[in-house]
Amino acid sequence: MPPLYVSFVAGAAGKWKIETIKAATGETLPCAGFLDIRESSEPNHRAGAPPQPPPDGWVLRGVVSNLRYTTRAEVEELKSRQEGLGRPAATRAALIPIRKSEAWWALSQDERRRIFEEQSRHTTLGMQYLPAIARRLHHSRELGEPFDFLTWFEYAPEHISAFEDLVAQLRQTEEWQYVTREVDIRLSAVQGLE
Amino acid sequence: MPPLYVSFVAGAAGKWKIETIKAATGETLPCAGFLDIRESSEPNHRAGAPPQPPPDGWVLRGVVSNLRYTTRAEVEELKSRQEGLGRPAATRAALIPIRKSEAWWALSQDERRRIFEEQSRHTTLGMQYLPAIARRLHHSRELGEPFDFLTWFEYAPEHISAFEDLVAQLRQTEEWQYVTREVDIRLSAVQGLE
Repeated sequence: MPPLYVSFVAGAAGKWKIETIKAATGETLPCAGFLDIRESSEPNHRAGAPPQPPPDGWVLRGVVSNLRYTTRAEVEELKSRQEGLGRPAATRAALIPIRKSEAWWALSQDERRRIFEEQSRHTTLGMQYLPAIARRLHHSRELGEPFDFLTWFEYAPEHISAFEDLVAQLRQTEEWQYVTREVDIRLSAVQGLE
Repeated sequence: MPPLYVSFVAGAAGKWKIETIKAATGETLPCAGFLDIRESSEPNHRAGAPPQPPPDGWVLRGVVSNLRYTTRAEVEELKSRQEGLGRPAATRAALIPIRKSEAWWALSQDERRRIFEEQSRHTTLGMQYLPAIARRLHHSRELGEPFDFLTWFEYAPEHISAFEDLVAQLRQTEEWQYVTREVDIRLSAVQGLE
């Protein structure tokens, strides 16, 4: 799949209502009412002006790209278990932007893989919550964004506590010692509200 | 090191004179007289308008970013052998933009590493030509560029045939079966010309 460019636009309108924005590590993001997700096969700088932040809002940009740590065996297991975004029952969501330290990026590939999976069990942990918690990773570091990654999660209301468990476990890992900024944004689908 | 944004601007002026532009695989690039290399710690879309192609010229953009396949042992060996760009004697250069197939990008990390190094010996091959041939890799895929990578090489005139050997060997590898477009641009330093 060629790269998919995604802009998360926070402002007065959008398909997702922002319930809370909390800093987990470092500086938070400004409050906003709603989040809109805009996807394009063209990066913004070629397709025209990138989405601009609305008044009192903000924009975070990322690109869905190739896997960086996942082995073939893990890919096959993920594929067999996971479900896509946009399930009607998945009316809760989280956007978790993360920045890692320069020390992380100075590690070699085998060192990052060891911390990511052999020690922190990042993929294995996420796998335990499939298919309930769907997930999509967006890379931002090469776009010069304030965060290195934007991870988007979708799940049904009955899986809220499972999601809390997943996030809490990840934050205990060795990998998370390299996280220098993390914001935790929780949302509800506007269409899906009772 | 934080990401470094680099634009290769081909046109009527620049520090490098373009000697030849040849397609190795797929479509070539238009002829141009000179190449200028512009570096920024800010990606173009935040620092203002990206460098625009001059009349009858073109621009290729990339970002110097973290290593994707290199192990710690390889990093240390590279560090102990390589020299930087900008050596006064290195008055010859090559810019080799490459695009790989979607089949390559759909591979898992372990599959790509196996082809890249265990089978194709990409790092090992390059290491044999250090410090003579200095090299810098620029990632372009996430920027929506026509190529996935731009590799820049600098070497002294007496190492021209060594460089030919290196390029010829790489093109014989299994990794290169995934290359769908490759252009080979050779240059001479304007300041360094005898």
